[in-house]
Amino acid sequence: MAFDTLKTPYGERQKILGGAATYFSLSASYFADVRVVAVVGGDFTAENEAVMNNRGIDTRGIEHAKGKTFHWSGEYGENVNEAKTLNTELNVFENFEPHIPAEYADSDFLFLANIDPILQTRVRDAMQSVKLVGGDTMNYWISGHAQNLEKMLQRVDVLLINDTEAKMLAGDNSLPRAARKVLQRGPRALVIKHGEYGATIFFRDGEFTGGHHPFRAPALPLDEVRDPTGAGDSFAGGFMGYIASQGEVNRRVLKHAMFYGSVMGSFSVERFGTERLQSLTRNEIDERFEVFRELTHLD
Amino acid sequence: MAFDTLKTPYGERQKILGGAATYFSLSASYFADVRVVAVVGGDFTAENEAVMNNRGIDTRGIEHAKGKTFHWSGEYGENVNEAKTLNTELNVFENFEPHIPAEYADSDFLFLANIDPILQTRVRDAMQSVKLVGGDTMNYWISGHAQNLEKMLQRVDVLLINDTEAKMLAGDNSLPRAARKVLQRGPRALVIKHGEYGATIFFRDGEFTGGHHPFRAPALPLDEVRDPTGAGDSFAGGFMGYIASQGEVNRRVLKHAMFYGSVMGSFSVERFGTERLQSLTRNEIDERFEVFRELTHLD
Repeated sequence: MAFDTLKTPYGERQKILGGAATYFSLSASYFADVRVVAVVGGDFTAENEAVMNNRGIDTRGIEHAKGKTFHWSGEYGENVNEAKTLNTELNVFENFEPHIPAEYADSDFLFLANIDPILQTRVRDAMQSVKLVGGDTMNYWISGHAQNLEKMLQRVDVLLINDTEAKMLAGDNSLPRAARKVLQRGPRALVIKHGEYGATIFFRDGEFTGGHHPFRAPALPLDEVRDPTGAGDSFAGGFMGYIASQGEVNRRVLKHAMFYGSVMGSFSVERFGTERLQSLTRNEIDERFEVFRELTHLD
Repeated sequence: MAFDTLKTPYGERQKILGGAATYFSLSASYFADVRVVAVVGGDFTAENEAVMNNRGIDTRGIEHAKGKTFHWSGEYGENVNEAKTLNTELNVFENFEPHIPAEYADSDFLFLANIDPILQTRVRDAMQSVKLVGGDTMNYWISGHAQNLEKMLQRVDVLLINDTEAKMLAGDNSLPRAARKVLQRGPRALVIKHGEYGATIFFRDGEFTGGHHPFRAPALPLDEVRDPTGAGDSFAGGFMGYIASQGEVNRRVLKHAMFYGSVMGSFSVERFGTERLQSLTRNEIDERFEVFRELTHLD
């Protein structure tokens, strides 16, 4: 969890509630019960935590440490796909050691947000009963912590990364070829996020029943992307949340999850920070799901 | 029509048959009768023309001028979306004045490939009986021939351009906003091609019946793009050819045409030059259409 100070062509905000765990949890909360593990500092207020509790999110896994909450500052230009980081203050995040509350032990689904792959692997190993593990990573870990990341890849079922990360991770500029290479290293499915062009899921041969081909969900052509921060984590929240809401995990469910992920990403970027994700209704989500269907489906 | 000398990560070719009219015509020939208007030089052989005639294309509109055929040289790096032009010899194309054979006068559909917008407008005005006009353009005309291009925009029904061209034409970095601005200047629909991410069609309000939303067709995630040359023109050929094969032009037909355009683009780039487009069967096209459907459609 984090505070974000950011500037986009539509305005700027100081230290608003952000962070992968926040976006993910709020997004997933429209589909399933969510339990969050994170660390915050003394500047994290009861009001901040109430944002999560108001959505029914179990926050017993939030550690309140001495010091300040992680603080990211950045700005977006006209190309909203590229954030320019101005400053990163790790603060309490620097020595974060995730601690899983005993009450979380029976969780069926686990999402490992972007963090040191050593910690991701440790958390995953501590959650023996989970049925499906999703995970994220980023360039920093791909280029500088390859061996640790390799172990993490063997412990996730679905990896969610973007185009640049996929190409870097595989060392291949062809996305489908990169996908196949990554799938050989552990994950049973790979979601590659293309920003405003949507996202594609690639399946490892023989994993998850139903169909052989990859599947692509569109992104909504939005006139105004006010704040792209958290779009990927909101996608992951919709994706994992929808999966968790279903009885079993097969390709049909994963394809629908791709659509719900895109739907949640499209809501997130409409307003600054987590504002839009705090006030949605399931009806709005289902209506937008139909818009996504119209956007791609032939009669 | 042109000769292309090109190099890609998969090999190189000297002076192979190319050009927008060639790719478009071959692609469209799988859906409808095609009549081509173009200029070639003395180096254009009977064998070159036979490639078109073998696909049933009416080549009476090909003018054989004194001099050499247009010759483009270029190369593609690992990023196949970007061609690096090494040399362009306009040759007979420099003073090309399209002449429409009398036998072509009853054509129902017209596609204006990328050329001086003055010539595009002139050809369009000469074809009074057409039901639907498609058109292409490029950065060179957008930045340097704006007034002439504006007149051409008022005379096309569907404009097909890529992301960069759309943003430049509208002076807007948001694709949906750029689309709306372009649609206010003439075309009833705008197809924006996203390369490996597919293409989106935007409709002007009230134009073509059936549905309000834009529509996105995917591109096929291909392991090996051997030669991206002509992908856009092959898309346009499949798009216009499919439309021409249908009884009427509505949004349903245009959406299917988006898929057929993507299908033909995906075939084109599998081999060098027009090789793949010369030897397809309608059955292969329909099979790939189903792959595209699986790639995007939920059960």
